[in-house]
Parts: sequence; C-alpha cells; structure tokens
Amino acid sequence: MIIGGGFPVSIQTMTRDALLPDRLSAVVQRIEALRKRGCDLVRFAVPDLPTAELLGSLSTVTDCPLVADVHFDYRIALRCLDFPLAKVRINPGTIGDEAKVRDVVAKAKDRGIALRVGVNAGSLPNSLDSEPDLALAMVTAAEMELEILERLGFSDVVFSLKSSDIGHTVKANEMFARKYDYPLHVGLTEAGPLVPGLVKNSIAISDLLKQGIGDTIRVSLSGTEEEEVEGGLSILRAVGARRYGVNVISCPRCGRSTFDVKSFLEQVSDFIQGISRPLTIAVMGCEVNGPGEARRADIGIAGAGTRAIIFRGGKVLRQVPFEQAASAFRQEVGRLCEQG
Amino acid sequence: MIIGGGFPVSIQTMTRDALLPDRLSAVVQRIEALRKRGCDLVRFAVPDLPTAELLGSLSTVTDCPLVADVHFDYRIALRCLDFPLAKVRINPGTIGDEAKVRDVVAKAKDRGIALRVGVNAGSLPNSLDSEPDLALAMVTAAEMELEILERLGFSDVVFSLKSSDIGHTVKANEMFARKYDYPLHVGLTEAGPLVPGLVKNSIAISDLLKQGIGDTIRVSLSGTEEEEVEGGLSILRAVGARRYGVNVISCPRCGRSTFDVKSFLEQVSDFIQGISRPLTIAVMGCEVNGPGEARRADIGIAGAGTRAIIFRGGKVLRQVPFEQAASAFRQEVGRLCEQG
Repeated sequence: MIIGGGFPVSIQTMTRDALLPDRLSAVVQRIEALRKRGCDLVRFAVPDLPTAELLGSLSTVTDCPLVADVHFDYRIALRCLDFPLAKVRINPGTIGDEAKVRDVVAKAKDRGIALRVGVNAGSLPNSLDSEPDLALAMVTAAEMELEILERLGFSDVVFSLKSSDIGHTVKANEMFARKYDYPLHVGLTEAGPLVPGLVKNSIAISDLLKQGIGDTIRVSLSGTEEEEVEGGLSILRAVGARRYGVNVISCPRCGRSTFDVKSFLEQVSDFIQGISRPLTIAVMGCEVNGPGEARRADIGIAGAGTRAIIFRGGKVLRQVPFEQAASAFRQEVGRLCEQG
Repeated sequence: MIIGGGFPVSIQTMTRDALLPDRLSAVVQRIEALRKRGCDLVRFAVPDLPTAELLGSLSTVTDCPLVADVHFDYRIALRCLDFPLAKVRINPGTIGDEAKVRDVVAKAKDRGIALRVGVNAGSLPNSLDSEPDLALAMVTAAEMELEILERLGFSDVVFSLKSSDIGHTVKANEMFARKYDYPLHVGLTEAGPLVPGLVKNSIAISDLLKQGIGDTIRVSLSGTEEEEVEGGLSILRAVGARRYGVNVISCPRCGRSTFDVKSFLEQVSDFIQGISRPLTIAVMGCEVNGPGEARRADIGIAGAGTRAIIFRGGKVLRQVPFEQAASAFRQEVGRLCEQG
C-alpha cells in the first residue's frame, strides 16, 4: 500500500486481539469485519518472537495491510521484516546499538518495508527532560531518530508525534510537517474513554488534516477497534477526505419525536455498516425538521403520527406502521443500492 | 442565568423524558444527575398546554435553568412565560399573526425571560427555497425573525443556526456573528448516532468556540442526555473553555497492555463522573508510555506485570493486585480530593 504523497488518508486501528495459534482464523475474520467498516491498516503489538511468527502466518492469509509494533528488541523487528507487512514500527533510538539498527534498516530496505518511528510524549528520551516546550521536545526526539536513519541512508519512514494533549500534538505535527516531507501518522495517544477520547481525537486530527497534514490516522480510544475505525471514518468524511459508506443524518433525542430514532438506528446499524457505496440516509423522528432534512438525503425515513414515511429523491415511497419500519427501510435501501 | 457577554459557555441538553404528573420526581432526579455531570441548561419540548403546566411545576422544584421548546402555538409560549424559565424557544415567524407575536414578546419582556430563535436548515421558510447557499439562507431566515423582534423593540434573544452539515453550520454562525452581537446557541442538528455525531459536533463546535463564537452549546446526538453533556464538557475542556471535573488520560486498547484499562474505567466511571474539582487522572495499561504519562497527572494508575501501581506527584503511593485496583484507586483519589 502507498502512504503519503497525495494518496488518500488511511485509517488504522491497533488490535488487542491476542495472536494465539488457535485464534488465527478468528483474528482473520475480525480483520475482514474491520476492513468492511473502512479500516485500511491493522497494527499488532509484537512483544516476542512467537508473536512475530504468528503475525507472519497472518500476513499470508489476509490481504489487509498489517503493521508490527515492536519495542526495544531488534531481533523481533528482523523477524517481522521476513513477512509481507506494510510497516514495522520501531524507534531506532531505543534499539541500543548502532550495529543492530544497521541490521534492521538494511533488511527493511532490502525487503521494501517502511519503518514507522513513533514519538510519544510519555516516553521521551531523558535528555529532553529539561525542555519546557513539550511540542518542541517531541520534534527534537523525532529528529534524533531521523538523524540515525538518514546517516544509514534510509528514508522509507513514516513518523508519528503523539501526546494526550491536543495542543502539543497539533503543534508538534505542524512543526515537523513544516520542516520535513516524511509521511505522518497522526492521532492522540491515551485519549481516554469513548466520549472524551473521540472529542479530543476529532478536534486534533481534523485540525491537522484541514492543513493537509496526516497520511494515516488512528483514533486511539479506550474502546473497541470498531469504534476507532468508525471514528476515523467519521473524521475523514467530516473534513471531506473520504466518501465511503453511509452518512447518517439522524434526530437527536427530543420530546417532539413520535418515532423512536435510537431504537430504529440500533435495528438497522449492522445493515448500514455493511454498505460501502456513498449514501446519505436520514432518520428523522420529528415533524418539525424531519421531512425537510429527509428530502435532501438519498433516502430517508421520518415519523409522522403512528406511521413512518420512507422518502427517496423528494418523493414518498411508502408509509408503514412503526413495527415494519426497519424491514421496509432495509428493503428500500437495498433496492436503491441495486439500482446504483 | 447569564448567557453571552463574556460569561462562561454553557452546556445544554434536551431531554426526551416525558413530563408526566407521576414522573416529576424522577425527572428532577435526572436533572440533578445531569447537572452533576456538568450540564447547565435542560431543554424540554412543550407540545401542549398540559406539558407547559408540568414544566411550570418542575421549575418550582429545581434550581436548574430550564428551557421550553415551543413550536407554532403562541398560547403555549404565553403559559410557559408565567414560570421562572431561563428561555423560551419559539420562532416568531412561525407564530403566524403579528398580534400574537406582540403578546409573546410583551410578556417575555415583562417577565425578563429570554427568547431563543432557532433556525434549522431542515425547516427554512419556503421563500428561501431558491437560495443555493444554504448558510446564507439560514442567516437570512434568522434575519427575518430578528426583523420582527427588533420592530417590537425586543433584544433579549439568543439565536441558533443549525444544520446537519458542519460546513454550512460553521459558515452560517460565522456570518451571523460578524453582523450581530446576539448570543449564539451553537451545535449541529440531526448529527447522527454517537460516534459520527460526536465527531461532527466536536469539529463544528470547537471550530466556532476557537473563534469566540458560541455562548451555549448542545452536542445533539441520537444517544443519551448523559452522552450529550459529557460530549459538551469534553469539547469545552478541549478548547480550554472549561476546567471542571476529571480529565482522564487513558490507554487505547493495544496488545502491550497487561492491565485491563477499559474494564477498570468501567468500574470507576460513576465515581469519576461525580468529582467536580479539576483533576487529571491517568489510567495506563502499558509499560511503554504508562509511567511517563501517569507521573504528569495529578494521580495515576499503571499496570506493571500482575500488579497495578498508583502514582501521585511523581511518587508511587502503593502497589496492589489488579483485583484491588479499583477500590485502592477510589481511596487514593478520595484522599487527594479531601486534602484539596
């Protein structure tokens, strides 16, 4: 896969699924499900050599680009580089010995596999402890890594500069992007639980993407991989960087609604997530804004008294009782998708 | 309560809780719980006169600022204005008859209650159908309402200009804020389910707040009121507009973690939500970034092997087995809060 250089921004998630011999087929299924939701890259922590073997096996049975996340141990990185991975994340500065770094870099170059250097504000080199500007400290840490790689003539690198703070992360990425042309993987780290984590990631990542900074993104959450991917996709759509799948316009909860939008959305959620063509769907409970918004969508449903009205292209397709709303809606969206 | 004019940005939610005579005490409890989470204003749809009576009763038993959401019927607005509400939302242009508008405005002025005029892209006047610039159409619709109110010498108005589209909403609010000094209630409408809805609201609302636009906000979601409030609070914190309660820095899911951060956060979630003093708490699973981030927080917990380490001010307070982590953490946070 191609990262950077004007190619579309990719969505990454990192999985917690343990790579165990008897779980490989379950992991493959999970990866395929994540891809259907819009995920482009899946990253795995590779803490030891047996895990590297398993990631290798996985890479031969899925065509999803995989990333190995390696820390400290160059032997693990070397083994990962035997397999058709998209990237290996390892920070040269933490390998410890220039000869070992040279081995890793030589093998990455030979195999045509990119390295990702990931600078995190939580684990900066001690030499930067006295730098009061955390963003500058992050950029300096990245430059220390870069210096090692450039000395070895290696440039197939993706950088990331992450902190749990929006301001520091945005500033560090802006500073780095002004000085260097290397592709950037952007996101916050340790952003927190779903709601605050999504808010912080949305603000930071959209700010950078709107400036043209960012080639891959990860919305890291103390949540599920599915939420990370859905969050990433929503951000790319929001900044106009991706048209993929369904954009749902739906009512907030309010006392005006006669139609239970939340429960309807839950009923059709899996169905909607499975649609890959760009489609705007309106799900409206309320007579005040409902029909107006629903008419502008590709297809829409709105409550009106005790019945639901399904709209398409400004025309009412059918009226059904609430209990038939989900099945009728699936049917009409299916028809629309078939007709292209 | 005071809205606009440099006062802090307020968080609003709109409840779906039905106002029924036998549910009033449950609604009061719900409102109090929402306030504890950071909510400043709760809005209720008032579709008929009996609901107006119930909202009136509610306003006498809670000191939470309440907003009545009224459509079309000036009699409902008039009845609402008998009670100590913070705002009545009604669009003069939809009342139908200038004499009726005059009655509403006179009573609002007499009672010192603000009106909120809410323009939604989904329900613009038909006369604006031919305007291709939706943001301009929204501003024009607001100006049509404003003209009626200014003619009647009424200026205690909060405006909102909402659409389900980030670009239109941001542009309409920017245009309006450049021309007028009226306070603005900002947010998207029909933003969709939790994940995409939160992403869109975060980007739109933070963009406006960073420009100094927005006096009250609502993160409208097809979700729960609690999620709306938590989302609003997270946005205000992210743009530096609010220091309130706990900021959680926590690990994303990743295979490096030995400590189950998600399940730990679920165990302490209610406890954390109940803390009103500003506090940064780090919950880290991973030895790579964990201790570094946790040390910078007011208090932190990080997994290390089979035990959890609780940090405070850069020092380890105690080490406990995972199963005692939640209770030990509650204890230490409690101590920290007591000591001020």
